[in-house]
Amino acid sequence: MNEQNTNQNAFGMIGLGTMGSNLLQNIADHGYNCAGYDNSKQKVDALNNLGSENIKGYSTLKEFTDSLKSPKIVMMLVPAGEIVDSVIKDLLTVLEKGDIIIDGGNSHFTDTEQRFIDLEGKGYHFVGMGVSGGEEGARRGSSMMPGGDEEAYEHLKPILEKIAAHVNGEPTVAFMGERSAGHFVKMVHNGIEYAIMQLISETYEIMKKGLKMDNEEIHQVYKKWNEGRLKSYLLEITTDIFAYKNEGEKTLLLDEIRDAAKAKGTGKWTSQAAMDLHIPTPIIDIAVSMRNLSSLKDLRVEASKIYSDSTEINYKTNNEDYCNKLEDAFYFAMVSAYAQGMHLLYQANIEFDYKVNLDTIAKIWRGGCIIRSEFLEDIYFAFNKNPKLQHLLLDNEVAKSLTETLPGIRAIVSDAALHGISTPAFSSSVSYFDNFRNENMPTNLVQAQRDYFGSHTYELKGKEGVFHTKWMMENIKE
Amino acid sequence: MNEQNTNQNAFGMIGLGTMGSNLLQNIADHGYNCAGYDNSKQKVDALNNLGSENIKGYSTLKEFTDSLKSPKIVMMLVPAGEIVDSVIKDLLTVLEKGDIIIDGGNSHFTDTEQRFIDLEGKGYHFVGMGVSGGEEGARRGSSMMPGGDEEAYEHLKPILEKIAAHVNGEPTVAFMGERSAGHFVKMVHNGIEYAIMQLISETYEIMKKGLKMDNEEIHQVYKKWNEGRLKSYLLEITTDIFAYKNEGEKTLLLDEIRDAAKAKGTGKWTSQAAMDLHIPTPIIDIAVSMRNLSSLKDLRVEASKIYSDSTEINYKTNNEDYCNKLEDAFYFAMVSAYAQGMHLLYQANIEFDYKVNLDTIAKIWRGGCIIRSEFLEDIYFAFNKNPKLQHLLLDNEVAKSLTETLPGIRAIVSDAALHGISTPAFSSSVSYFDNFRNENMPTNLVQAQRDYFGSHTYELKGKEGVFHTKWMMENIKE
Repeated sequence: MNEQNTNQNAFGMIGLGTMGSNLLQNIADHGYNCAGYDNSKQKVDALNNLGSENIKGYSTLKEFTDSLKSPKIVMMLVPAGEIVDSVIKDLLTVLEKGDIIIDGGNSHFTDTEQRFIDLEGKGYHFVGMGVSGGEEGARRGSSMMPGGDEEAYEHLKPILEKIAAHVNGEPTVAFMGERSAGHFVKMVHNGIEYAIMQLISETYEIMKKGLKMDNEEIHQVYKKWNEGRLKSYLLEITTDIFAYKNEGEKTLLLDEIRDAAKAKGTGKWTSQAAMDLHIPTPIIDIAVSMRNLSSLKDLRVEASKIYSDSTEINYKTNNEDYCNKLEDAFYFAMVSAYAQGMHLLYQANIEFDYKVNLDTIAKIWRGGCIIRSEFLEDIYFAFNKNPKLQHLLLDNEVAKSLTETLPGIRAIVSDAALHGISTPAFSSSVSYFDNFRNENMPTNLVQAQRDYFGSHTYELKGKEGVFHTKWMMENIKE
Repeated sequence: MNEQNTNQNAFGMIGLGTMGSNLLQNIADHGYNCAGYDNSKQKVDALNNLGSENIKGYSTLKEFTDSLKSPKIVMMLVPAGEIVDSVIKDLLTVLEKGDIIIDGGNSHFTDTEQRFIDLEGKGYHFVGMGVSGGEEGARRGSSMMPGGDEEAYEHLKPILEKIAAHVNGEPTVAFMGERSAGHFVKMVHNGIEYAIMQLISETYEIMKKGLKMDNEEIHQVYKKWNEGRLKSYLLEITTDIFAYKNEGEKTLLLDEIRDAAKAKGTGKWTSQAAMDLHIPTPIIDIAVSMRNLSSLKDLRVEASKIYSDSTEINYKTNNEDYCNKLEDAFYFAMVSAYAQGMHLLYQANIEFDYKVNLDTIAKIWRGGCIIRSEFLEDIYFAFNKNPKLQHLLLDNEVAKSLTETLPGIRAIVSDAALHGISTPAFSSSVSYFDNFRNENMPTNLVQAQRDYFGSHTYELKGKEGVFHTKWMMENIKE
């Protein structure tokens, strides 16, 4: 094992799971000396057994932090929640004011907000940083979303820019904004991820059950889509999944996998935060709901017997033509998913005064992260040319693409409803769109009803103030 | 003003807004002596000026509580949040152990849970009680959902049963369950209310913009619907609203009302709680989202210009026939909305050990409250005959009606998507249904993707345990 002087390590990592270990190796590859710590001796040994000249694992927190250059940079990759607070508490016994603590886990942004206030009050720098890209990203280049204070970020920047993924020579990391901005942005990233995964699963359902296509045909469709405007990491891995065969057999592993989907909660957080900020994100909401419904397997099996299908599922159409429509539909709905997420970020920026630039977010999402896609380039351009753009669907270029793909998604949603194929996210993207472009929604009726039963008042068109009507005077018989 | 001896009042109310005053008058009508308190002298005076023999308003909290019989019953009808805590704090200075405090406002159930634990620990009885029915209900009979401890409820029962609405001679009040059960049930009530209001607004949109019907024609449809299986308070008031003309004119007030809908937050709470409990309630979620979207009026006006409609909205069909289909669709979606709400209650009962009976809830919702309807009788029967029923859609009678109305809603949703009419709640009810009865959802793909990019593992059909695959081994070029 290499011998290093104390105070020579540029970066310290607490939590040596695959993500933490991979990130350290990534940093070491760029010539930095790194330190790792974990309360599992096994993981510390595993790190030392990598045999890297630049990486050393420590078994005590004191030795670990003593090995770091000042201001010391310590990143945590530990499970979100109480463990983060417990690690911070321990760290405060060995760090000094001016040192930098990074939380690289999926912490809830409200926890990060509180920790930032606490730690900055005590004189430490705290950076809540979303990291996307999974284990592979950690090793080869991920998308990183640091937030907190910009002074601390300047210290981290040289290292983070090297270990990030790169798109057109530019690193997929940037300072996201004040306090909890980094974790908020990462949360919305995951919300969009849920939405796009749901959309892909709906295309799978249509092709499999509606068009009766076999796995190889579906594989070819995803492959083709991923060569065009839909090119994205999620379609790339979907294509791979449709090629992954069971050992020694011709069948797909996919077909053996149980359909009860799990979730770590970041999608749910996105929907809940969106509701708190009064921003509609129905595609994300429905993606969360459908994971929950998928987990109710026993209920669904029972229901499938009661509602033994009288609906004609088989579409009986030209599959190739239909898949082109489906590509349009997917494009339309995918754009809507990104748009709803960006809209939430727009509002959070106002509400929480994050000082986030939406174009910067789109820029660093173009590579390294799970939702990276060709279309993020368009999002980047839209917000870059108009930094005040409130909603992506108001961008002219985006509007042009949406208008072109609209007939496709209308047909797909319409057919699915008739044929008994469930397409909640596709449907929701159309409904959202049709109300988004609806100058007069029917919610005047909702306001009238609320005033009727609860005296909640209403507003009038072209008239200031709020009004109340005793709608039911005649009903109350005194 | 009447002179009462001290310690003679049977019931005390804090918060003398219209709801509080009406409830006191209701109680007084049944021969009870009542006391009222408010920190607004004006409201106290207004109460005394009613001239009721049995009602007296007090200007100090001490006089107010001194006037009550022991164990003293004090109900608060004050805005949810910190005010409730502040009133409770004041009350503890003048009440004695064994006295009963009722929170009749729309408190969040988690606040009620905490208050219950605190107050019971101190020896006071605390009842978190949802009250629905608005001002008219308070005066004439509302639906009340008390939760907390049953011993306290037994003291309140004689009074509450008298002031409740009555259905077939039975009062629409009953003990809901332990601790925060009452406010949880009321929250879900409101979630269902949001959903049904959204559904009604969608029928309005279809009739107005799709079928080009005028207000009087729409009025007749709602009137007719309200005479059949859809009979409900919300359709009744909708019918009234479509008859309410501007003063001295032939036009409807409704047409002058601005479409930006407001919300007090209980619908949002329902969706957020459902997500925390992993129960899909997409119709409620979308109702919350659409209120939020409706409030973004400026955005919508701007979008309406960019997406100047190329879609043919006019349905060109036989309106009478179409409205029959629409009635089927509404029935189907309304049932789904109730079913999703009841499903959430089912799960909350398990999660929080409320000891709620679902049939009791349906029973007391049949009258007095905003979501009262003919169909609640069917819900009551379903859970009454099978107390273990997990989901309303698994009831045979309900399944029969849903199967009959399914072609209607499929047609409505399909047409709306093609014609550019937004029907998010209708669409969502179909999508939910089609996945609910889907033995094999496409979420096996979601699980494969999650395992691919995040090593989150997956389960296999008919095999115990969790599994992980190195899907992308070949992609990592060492």
